[in-house]
Amino acid sequence: MNLIDALRAELLYERMGPAVETSGGSAGNTAAGVASFGGRSAYFGKVARDPLGRIFAHDIHAQGVAFDTEPLDGGAPTARSMIFVTPDGERSMNTYLGACVELGPDDVEDDKAAAATVTYFEGYLWDPPRAKQAILKTAEIAHAAGREVAFTLSDPFCVDRYREEFLHLMRTGVVDIAFANEHELKSLYQTGSFEAALGQLRRDCRMAAVTQSERGSIIVRGDETVPVEAIPVVDVVDTTGAGDLYAAGFLHGYTQGLDLARCGNLGSLAAGLVIQQVGPRPRQNLKAEAEQAGLL
Amino acid sequence: MNLIDALRAELLYERMGPAVETSGGSAGNTAAGVASFGGRSAYFGKVARDPLGRIFAHDIHAQGVAFDTEPLDGGAPTARSMIFVTPDGERSMNTYLGACVELGPDDVEDDKAAAATVTYFEGYLWDPPRAKQAILKTAEIAHAAGREVAFTLSDPFCVDRYREEFLHLMRTGVVDIAFANEHELKSLYQTGSFEAALGQLRRDCRMAAVTQSERGSIIVRGDETVPVEAIPVVDVVDTTGAGDLYAAGFLHGYTQGLDLARCGNLGSLAAGLVIQQVGPRPRQNLKAEAEQAGLL
Repeated sequence: MNLIDALRAELLYERMGPAVETSGGSAGNTAAGVASFGGRSAYFGKVARDPLGRIFAHDIHAQGVAFDTEPLDGGAPTARSMIFVTPDGERSMNTYLGACVELGPDDVEDDKAAAATVTYFEGYLWDPPRAKQAILKTAEIAHAAGREVAFTLSDPFCVDRYREEFLHLMRTGVVDIAFANEHELKSLYQTGSFEAALGQLRRDCRMAAVTQSERGSIIVRGDETVPVEAIPVVDVVDTTGAGDLYAAGFLHGYTQGLDLARCGNLGSLAAGLVIQQVGPRPRQNLKAEAEQAGLL
Repeated sequence: MNLIDALRAELLYERMGPAVETSGGSAGNTAAGVASFGGRSAYFGKVARDPLGRIFAHDIHAQGVAFDTEPLDGGAPTARSMIFVTPDGERSMNTYLGACVELGPDDVEDDKAAAATVTYFEGYLWDPPRAKQAILKTAEIAHAAGREVAFTLSDPFCVDRYREEFLHLMRTGVVDIAFANEHELKSLYQTGSFEAALGQLRRDCRMAAVTQSERGSIIVRGDETVPVEAIPVVDVVDTTGAGDLYAAGFLHGYTQGLDLARCGNLGSLAAGLVIQQVGPRPRQNLKAEAEQAGLL
């Protein structure tokens, strides 16, 4: 994922091919995924009062997610990411943050932060200047209410920008549950050895789930290790949203009190479905899919 | 396809589920399809100077279609259609025409109308008040330059609204080539008999191609009859754009001087591909697909 400014966003858009527009954003995809599984989720995030912001709000509301953050008036427009997908489904993302940079502590809704079983945030949110204040405030409210806090490392380059801060979040218990893919994990510990990195993660974070593309995922909690298989995939169309939807499945299972293997299986299901379509939010009803797969 | 006003468009949008936004519009899809086959196409159509209009222009330009119609300033917003797709891929369309209703004779670009081997228009364009004047003017320029004019019957209800006018267009030679599906054809001749309708069509129009979903299509020209097979389809995801893309394949072949069977096969290919994805414009490169299928 590359961060781009407004000028480069214009330039890239002029040069890119015909596109499909869909709502996205990492944690927004996760919130939508949880709702699609039948879970209750709420989202904090800043859009502008413009057509893209309206579409974003429409889609996340229509999915059943509570989303009440006040849109930004008269500032930057709603964020967008131009995602180029190769024929084998891999993608590069070019993100203009726009109104996102205005998300701040005033946008935290205390009641929701206190009521959520798990509060989940993106490592990406360390890029905009005031979002981390909002996140730390939310985490404090959540922990004061006896809740848990989760985050995703988001991207190997994002990890590289904020390595020490991310490690600090885990080691000081601001974060209880970490999500990562193997590239992000290796970047975090600056090692080429997955096993070595996983061993360190096990010590640094109370619980973590690490995805490994078609090889499934591994959940670690203290000495416990739970390997999880990926689902069979016919055709990888677009991997956008895979990690977000894995987190959605996992967190839905976790907040329903299911065992870790089942949580991982729900993550595999949602991730496996989303990569077989264009766009980061599966169009299937995930609850129905999970029931059909015997997971719910 | 239902025409809806701005108020109902708002209401429906509030009530509809999470959506995927893509450029569309019947003849625009056909122009994009021709360009994807490697043909040259130009499009006349009215969008507003607003974000949706900009996205429409981006996508059709990025596909390689010439599109220079002046956008509408300070009037209705760009048209949109809210399309609900059932699990078996069938769809209902709810279209707010918006800026489309302002398309008129001043928007005809004489040089393009005279230079195009075939000028193709939608029967849908009989709904907005001034578009038919633009079409008749374009047809006149095209015929004066020795070119041909094609149209699609668009929709059985559209046919019902303009039956006599559509028959008049064909019988007086304003239209040389007609595209229809079997429902539109039966509606045109108010008969339940496909054979009877096809017989009348053969007399009324110099050439016509009638699509029959998974049963392929039939091309008639005078006494000539060319049956065309559909391509095998694994999973019908969304039939939106099927007729538009059939016309794209057919017209690309026709303007390249290919025989009618080959024209029909190109139509079948494009239609078969577009119904296996969400949205009305195939994301594949149709030229490459046609070459791989041995059709180009």
